[in-house]
Amino acid sequence: MENITGILFDLFLMFAVAKVMGELFERARQPAVVGEILAGIILGPHILNLIGPSHFYNVLAEIGVIILLFNVGLHTRTDEMLSVGPISLVVALLGIIFPFVFGYLYTQIIAHSTVEAMFIGAAMVATSVGITARVLADLGILDAKVSKVILGAAVIDDIIGLIVLAVVAGLGKGTISYVTIGLVLFEAIAFVIFLIIIGRRVMYRFFGANLNVFKSRNAPFTIAILICLGLSAVASYIHLAAIVGAFMAGMILAEFNIQFRLSVKTESLYDFLVPFFFVMMGKQVDLSIFSHPSIIGAALILTIFAILGKLIGCGLGALSLGWKQASLVGVGMVPRGEVGLIVASIGLSLGVITKDLYSIVVFMVIATTLLTPPVLRSLVVKMPELEGVGEKITEEEETPE
Amino acid sequence: MENITGILFDLFLMFAVAKVMGELFERARQPAVVGEILAGIILGPHILNLIGPSHFYNVLAEIGVIILLFNVGLHTRTDEMLSVGPISLVVALLGIIFPFVFGYLYTQIIAHSTVEAMFIGAAMVATSVGITARVLADLGILDAKVSKVILGAAVIDDIIGLIVLAVVAGLGKGTISYVTIGLVLFEAIAFVIFLIIIGRRVMYRFFGANLNVFKSRNAPFTIAILICLGLSAVASYIHLAAIVGAFMAGMILAEFNIQFRLSVKTESLYDFLVPFFFVMMGKQVDLSIFSHPSIIGAALILTIFAILGKLIGCGLGALSLGWKQASLVGVGMVPRGEVGLIVASIGLSLGVITKDLYSIVVFMVIATTLLTPPVLRSLVVKMPELEGVGEKITEEEETPE
Repeated sequence: MENITGILFDLFLMFAVAKVMGELFERARQPAVVGEILAGIILGPHILNLIGPSHFYNVLAEIGVIILLFNVGLHTRTDEMLSVGPISLVVALLGIIFPFVFGYLYTQIIAHSTVEAMFIGAAMVATSVGITARVLADLGILDAKVSKVILGAAVIDDIIGLIVLAVVAGLGKGTISYVTIGLVLFEAIAFVIFLIIIGRRVMYRFFGANLNVFKSRNAPFTIAILICLGLSAVASYIHLAAIVGAFMAGMILAEFNIQFRLSVKTESLYDFLVPFFFVMMGKQVDLSIFSHPSIIGAALILTIFAILGKLIGCGLGALSLGWKQASLVGVGMVPRGEVGLIVASIGLSLGVITKDLYSIVVFMVIATTLLTPPVLRSLVVKMPELEGVGEKITEEEETPE
Repeated sequence: MENITGILFDLFLMFAVAKVMGELFERARQPAVVGEILAGIILGPHILNLIGPSHFYNVLAEIGVIILLFNVGLHTRTDEMLSVGPISLVVALLGIIFPFVFGYLYTQIIAHSTVEAMFIGAAMVATSVGITARVLADLGILDAKVSKVILGAAVIDDIIGLIVLAVVAGLGKGTISYVTIGLVLFEAIAFVIFLIIIGRRVMYRFFGANLNVFKSRNAPFTIAILICLGLSAVASYIHLAAIVGAFMAGMILAEFNIQFRLSVKTESLYDFLVPFFFVMMGKQVDLSIFSHPSIIGAALILTIFAILGKLIGCGLGALSLGWKQASLVGVGMVPRGEVGLIVASIGLSLGVITKDLYSIVVFMVIATTLLTPPVLRSLVVKMPELEGVGEKITEEEETPE
């Protein structure tokens, strides 16, 4: 209780600045999420230093991104996802190979060791599904086929990114266990397949039955949140990211989203919690590391490779959708997020990569994250065929009025 | 990140058991809140010990009770509150004098010191507005006049309870500063009057204007949450309880609740966060302290005095509403909550009251908390004139469908 005053002021400040910046960005016809990340940078320790160091905010941010991915899952019907599955898989795989090779080769060229090159390559791999999902949701095209391809690929990407993480972490410690890699891979695949086959069937039985037997108000929403929390915990427990569990929870409930207004009912939780995730993402950014021109130069080059890697890899993978949509997939897969940062920070803590290289990876993550939303937006605006495919979450909410 | 798995499992468990127990209690025609408190007792350290010691849960619970009181405030129009103000004030004052005197005298009789008697008296004072508000909301009579009287008195009670707390804490340390007491009293009154006069006027200007100028989705909800967080922080900062700020935030927005569907939009936040408050309340209960029959005897007698004190004091204060409604007010003011526990734990930590007396206060708090909801419910059921006065929060939500 003693520091509740400080926490309440911090929450107020983070929420207020995030919403004001988001509003400014929306007025400039840019995605609100960029404003929220900038809010975190501004409030963070390296500029205004106005937010306390409470562990609470990290957990709140994690619950925020869980709610975000749960909501994305609610808009992702399994049958649609399975229909884009093969394309998503190719997009994900090519989108891993190209950036990894680019990052590996570039790091070797600027005269670093093989292990270091492996780490940088690994940090180039995982797409930040959170950023892309949020932008697609803000643009109201979450229900378009191309969005399913991107989200499917991003989730596969996230899973493979975690496996790559396990590998490089083993590399850094000098111990790679194929058993560990195999185990993570097996658990991931088993988890996803089990949920798609058994989980969905259970949901059909359950939500197809008469839910009026429950006396509690909002029983369907309560049960949905329970499934989300439970699967997030299980995913986290088996060393997948919690957000993979949250996404799967949403997906197996997607068929009942409209009937029970699940995503509408999740809305205030979303509006309250999700900004904290992006503010905390911004808070971790230290701009002072870019005082040396040589570091900026190397960072810019790595960022270009990071962008080209996904554009070429994912674009090629999605060519069957046509040039325009393939470019959208390529751009949508560009943002790197927390997994890239985690890989880099593990490398740093193991003493395998230098502080300079760490800063370069951080720059790449920030740059790809901040650049993608406006580019994605300008591409979508030029594709009228995508509009009206899905409603914005906002509009959906306002229909009943 | 390291213990996020554990936190997610804990959240799942707390939410699941709370909702299952709530459902069972609703089926037995009892208030869900009692089930949620029992869920906390069951999961807590003295029975199953399944919840980790994370500070996170306490903060989450605090945000939960803030959202609860904010919602109660949204149902409390200032003009209605001011019209019941005089009755509420009398109810609050008599409801403080009687329990304090009863507690003081009883403690003196069982041969303890004056300071100890002052502490026990103080612990008897503050009504747990959270419990009562939740039960009134569950019963759907939040908009009835008698509910306004109870809530107004409970809020005044909470403020005076905090002043009494400041006094006894000073007593315990051997230093009572009349300046401190005066300051807390002045701040509390200034805060409430400032918000009712200036705050409301600002809200009229703001929400009366065209809110469509905002590009962000759900701008009215966002602004409402910001006001809630901000005033909670300010109230906490000036040594009032954060929940007083949250209640005032809701109250100055109450006039716009219907137009902007504020309480409906807060619903999923409410359903997700509020149970954690009651689970955490239950978690603090240690049943093992009642192994000695003499302690149980003393605890039962103190509990009876605690109930009689509020029944007589608050009932007398509300006699102008007629016998039936006065009894409802008396019962509604019976539950003691966190302030009573805080007073007792300060006394314990200062070495002013014994461990036995502390346990007796804890028993009194639990017993009044668990006994009130069913009694309140059975009284309300016998008063058909209250039904239909206010809609249940649930029904309100379902209207637009």
